[in-house]
Amino acid sequence: MADIEAPFRVRQEGRGRLGLLRTAHGIVETPAFLPVGTQGSVKGLLPAEVRAAGAAMLLANTYHLWLRPGAERVAELGGLHRFMAWDGPILTDSGGFQVFSLADRSRVDDDGVTFRSHLDGSLRRLDPATAVAVQEALGSDVAMVLDQCVPYPCARDEAEAAVRRTVRWAEICRGAHRRGDQLLFAIVQGGVHADLRARCTDALVALGFPGYALGSLSVGEPLAEMRRVLEATVPLLPQDRPRYLMGVGSPDYLLEAVWSGIDLFDCVLPTRVARNGTALVLPAGLVASETGAAGTDLPEGRTGRLVVRNASYAADARPVDPTCGCPCCRDFTRAYLRHLFRSGEMLGPRLLSCHNLHTLHRFVAAIRASIASGELAAFREAFWQRAEPWAPSNR
Amino acid sequence: MADIEAPFRVRQEGRGRLGLLRTAHGIVETPAFLPVGTQGSVKGLLPAEVRAAGAAMLLANTYHLWLRPGAERVAELGGLHRFMAWDGPILTDSGGFQVFSLADRSRVDDDGVTFRSHLDGSLRRLDPATAVAVQEALGSDVAMVLDQCVPYPCARDEAEAAVRRTVRWAEICRGAHRRGDQLLFAIVQGGVHADLRARCTDALVALGFPGYALGSLSVGEPLAEMRRVLEATVPLLPQDRPRYLMGVGSPDYLLEAVWSGIDLFDCVLPTRVARNGTALVLPAGLVASETGAAGTDLPEGRTGRLVVRNASYAADARPVDPTCGCPCCRDFTRAYLRHLFRSGEMLGPRLLSCHNLHTLHRFVAAIRASIASGELAAFREAFWQRAEPWAPSNR
Repeated sequence: MADIEAPFRVRQEGRGRLGLLRTAHGIVETPAFLPVGTQGSVKGLLPAEVRAAGAAMLLANTYHLWLRPGAERVAELGGLHRFMAWDGPILTDSGGFQVFSLADRSRVDDDGVTFRSHLDGSLRRLDPATAVAVQEALGSDVAMVLDQCVPYPCARDEAEAAVRRTVRWAEICRGAHRRGDQLLFAIVQGGVHADLRARCTDALVALGFPGYALGSLSVGEPLAEMRRVLEATVPLLPQDRPRYLMGVGSPDYLLEAVWSGIDLFDCVLPTRVARNGTALVLPAGLVASETGAAGTDLPEGRTGRLVVRNASYAADARPVDPTCGCPCCRDFTRAYLRHLFRSGEMLGPRLLSCHNLHTLHRFVAAIRASIASGELAAFREAFWQRAEPWAPSNR
Repeated sequence: MADIEAPFRVRQEGRGRLGLLRTAHGIVETPAFLPVGTQGSVKGLLPAEVRAAGAAMLLANTYHLWLRPGAERVAELGGLHRFMAWDGPILTDSGGFQVFSLADRSRVDDDGVTFRSHLDGSLRRLDPATAVAVQEALGSDVAMVLDQCVPYPCARDEAEAAVRRTVRWAEICRGAHRRGDQLLFAIVQGGVHADLRARCTDALVALGFPGYALGSLSVGEPLAEMRRVLEATVPLLPQDRPRYLMGVGSPDYLLEAVWSGIDLFDCVLPTRVARNGTALVLPAGLVASETGAAGTDLPEGRTGRLVVRNASYAADARPVDPTCGCPCCRDFTRAYLRHLFRSGEMLGPRLLSCHNLHTLHRFVAAIRASIASGELAAFREAFWQRAEPWAPSNR
């Protein structure tokens, strides 16, 4: 870590905290949400659009890029930033999550995971040293250790075995890591078992990392369960290191996690639901209007989403969200969006992806502002008065 | 036509001519290529991007918009320009071409066409008055008469029957047409039979229209055959009216048609082949570099296209066309484009669509410049020394 001194600085702390994450490609204000560029592209959007939507940092999936086009190929082409033409910070995951969820017949042992590629069936091996080497070749600003993910629900002994491996692998990753311009974050496992989370946290903190993530949350557990795990775990993490909750991106889970002291988030939710025709709409009056329009109407109740295919929008000349200043809401109507989705036109997914990223970043910016002014508690209360929960999101 | 006086002005004429087409939404320099916004969207692109790629005018398909979302719905939402947020000129076709090519079990009679919608199988009727009414509701700047399209090859008696109907329908359309802010163009039919083309032209010119199109070309006939039909037909058209060759968009056919005196073109080719992973690349040295780069390399010979999936581009760090200044070539490599297409990422089709429109408009702008400087013959010769023909394009 020689090249990046004190990569994180906490500027304000209480329920929710403000921080600055310094990387080789720039500084990120936290709390921050990272859109997902799964295969080296935030689906359908140009880097400039992702930035204009408010993103300061992206996540890219090591598993996908490792299998195609290959990490050495990306390195040869000047690294991931140049490859995808994104000059801001990038975080890569370890590949473990996709190996467990996407690959065929993955088999974990104490030293790593053997699996077959979902692309061509070829036999592959992911171990801690490989996860580090691949991420070093990609050249991300933040790399993640290889961890063993567990589902929800998960039996205690399975969660315990995963903690043991995760700690061991974290140590191997740390030993293998060479790049001075890349931060290596550890990942806390332990399912929903508070004592296992604590044990894992203590072991990882003893090893010492510049940042810590929480894995295997937002994998189907109720919000209250996630909240309970966070409240038991986050206080054990060092105050001066960034905390990253992997796979969270719905406004409700995100806000609750900030409340518990989380700094970083990533999720495919905003772009995935966009491609499906669902627009994120912030509860009326929660966040200042960008257009001067009085307020968001939420014709489907207080759910925070607008399904553009609905017949009720067939002649609706309003933008998706009248208070939103994004390119989708600036120029296009709900009726047009509905038409695009019914017609299978790819401009539909593109426009809603842009809107959803803009909206989620607008939400996170409002959270940051409320922390800065000491009003996060009021913001949170206002949110829960107006919003209804999303289903748990997934990566 | 009361509102649009002298909608076309020829500025220079010889082999190839320069003109200005005045519409209710602005003036178009000709020769001009119109990208196709089939269902009210140039697939994957924002209006501002289509304009930045060089387009002054679009084509939209009446058949598609009539069936979904419906012409009355579009009218109710403020017309097609507002619906799709394109404030430049729009030309709509009559719907006939799609009825013959897309609809199930279309049956033509002397008064119109009965068919089943390809969307829901519902029974529909398109006749000349309906074609006009639908286009008036859409509010395009240029509407087309309903014509009977014929395939290639086509027996003489079938082509002759189509001419008879086309002339009759053109007269009915003219009688039904009301909008003063919309031009109504006639369409010359007659297959590849020069005498039928001449007969059709004479009859339509006698009726009098502000513009004339040639239909049922670029439907599979060899370039020489199209050239022969143009040479026999175009001289019979009035010099002071725009001439529109429907469905042409490959550089070779387009250049030959300009040489024969055509002013307007439309085609899905640049965007359709883009979605398939094929980039249009102009022959080396034909058109001035936009980047300062020495010249285009055409690694697949002189074919004018680059298939980005080819394995030879896996590590190619050059832009698709080093001389091109479009957003795709400015920021991204062939290796990245190849990766996007192999990964099924929608950014790939989007970027190549942008590049192909930019390239075709760059080509048409170079044609205009060569006409202006009296060098079209030299330009054409240089083109044929370097280029090889595209397969016939289609709408």
